[in-house]
Amino acid sequence: MTTTLLSSATREVRIGFDEPFVIIGERINPTGRKVLAREMKAGDFSRVEADAIAQVKAGAQMLDVNAGIPLADEPAILAQAIKLVQSVTDVPLSIDSSIVEALEAGLAVYQGKPLVNSVTGEDEVLERVLPLVAKYGAAVVAISNDETGISEDPNERFIVAKKIVERAADYGISHEDVIVDPLVMPIGAVNSAGKQVMELVYRLRNELHVNTTCGASNISFGLPNRNGVNGAFLAMAIAAGMTSAITSPLHEEVVQAVRGADVMMGHDPDCAKWIRAYREPLAEVTDTGRRRRRRRA
Amino acid sequence: MTTTLLSSATREVRIGFDEPFVIIGERINPTGRKVLAREMKAGDFSRVEADAIAQVKAGAQMLDVNAGIPLADEPAILAQAIKLVQSVTDVPLSIDSSIVEALEAGLAVYQGKPLVNSVTGEDEVLERVLPLVAKYGAAVVAISNDETGISEDPNERFIVAKKIVERAADYGISHEDVIVDPLVMPIGAVNSAGKQVMELVYRLRNELHVNTTCGASNISFGLPNRNGVNGAFLAMAIAAGMTSAITSPLHEEVVQAVRGADVMMGHDPDCAKWIRAYREPLAEVTDTGRRRRRRRA
Repeated sequence: MTTTLLSSATREVRIGFDEPFVIIGERINPTGRKVLAREMKAGDFSRVEADAIAQVKAGAQMLDVNAGIPLADEPAILAQAIKLVQSVTDVPLSIDSSIVEALEAGLAVYQGKPLVNSVTGEDEVLERVLPLVAKYGAAVVAISNDETGISEDPNERFIVAKKIVERAADYGISHEDVIVDPLVMPIGAVNSAGKQVMELVYRLRNELHVNTTCGASNISFGLPNRNGVNGAFLAMAIAAGMTSAITSPLHEEVVQAVRGADVMMGHDPDCAKWIRAYREPLAEVTDTGRRRRRRRA
Repeated sequence: MTTTLLSSATREVRIGFDEPFVIIGERINPTGRKVLAREMKAGDFSRVEADAIAQVKAGAQMLDVNAGIPLADEPAILAQAIKLVQSVTDVPLSIDSSIVEALEAGLAVYQGKPLVNSVTGEDEVLERVLPLVAKYGAAVVAISNDETGISEDPNERFIVAKKIVERAADYGISHEDVIVDPLVMPIGAVNSAGKQVMELVYRLRNELHVNTTCGASNISFGLPNRNGVNGAFLAMAIAAGMTSAITSPLHEEVVQAVRGADVMMGHDPDCAKWIRAYREPLAEVTDTGRRRRRRRA
């Protein structure tokens, strides 16, 4: 049974085949968020702080932190953001950048064992990122594309993932510390995207024995009622064996789908978490309370 | 690729591995509905009619019709109900009774090819129900329990299902006309119920090559927010290969989970049905419309 341990200074999170699904909050990311990008660049981290607290409150067990702002000093901003987030929450973090110097700056200030997001199957990237992951004793997200881009053939993506897991082992990084992202395409454009992910997750779990993650919201790009698509996708990916996702816990439908999937997988003993989340508070069992329950039933 | 064809006088429905998931509306059933039971017994079918129309409108592609009322003339009431429902809707029906005479009375008046719900693995039941299914050229729901009751061991349930499929073949009923119900336990009582169903559905599909159905709402018995549990269950059962369910299309969360699962399985080409169901009406793209869309995104 594969388990990836991640930690902050004071708290440990386990991602694993026999563990509840882990939501890694996606919000701290300036991509497509102009105001946040401007603020972070100017050294104002108040929105980062608020996003961190809100996501943990909503159910994120980990947070992704990205500081990808054009023409900014990304290594310095990422390090600052990580220090700030670690000062206001105790969840383990995913240090997210496509710039190796930024990953290293984040790793240097991080307290605990983080997730490095990410390494691809490109040789040059592998050779620069994996030594860092090994040096800091971190875990890493492996994205299954390489020099040739993202293959539409799930088998090709599996082969790239296998290559990364093997290369990581050469650096002394166990397969338990490699979490593979099978890559989620927008299903509005690639109608087979859902089946691709499910098949790939199943193989990654049963043949490579690795945990999996993904940028779940990609699946619904361009479609109406995105949270409905995301919820169905997450439940089905979990059924196929997915163990974590980088997504937004601020959407109740997404959190509910994950909680329901944990119940179905037998990862919520006695449905205790589900019952705690959805039972009617005793004080509200008034006329109004009753009416609300009936609507839900 | 297994396909079960069902029909009314004018309409055909396909349940199959490569088809959209089929919701069989569960509402026309007096069990636990005292008012409906009293009305049906007194020959008042107005609620049956309303339930039939509402369920089809909400997205049911078939309807289950049950007339199980204690101390009533079930064969006569079931036949009447079926005639009435066939006069107000054109969807194929599932004729639902545990009394063989009632199944026969329903079959005698039915126009088209119905689903007989159900036969169990008990020898006496097999010997009485299968000849009827063969005589009327119907399809049948096979429930995987037998004289020994419902086994908690999915392997036992698989063996019972296999026995029913083989016995049906002896009567000239193809495996395509046997839809197996793996039996869904309340997950609040049996925490492994979700995994049991997923594993069983996977085997039924890949080893027996049969379609599957279930009474989906059982899974959430006794839990709060039942529709949330039902939605996650359906999406995950569909991921495992389930092709139909007897459930309520009147709960939007259930219908949304099924629509989302169809998208994920590649059974909604170009996501056309999803987009039709959830796109914003053009007239609403005003300030208010924009604000609502942003909230959803």
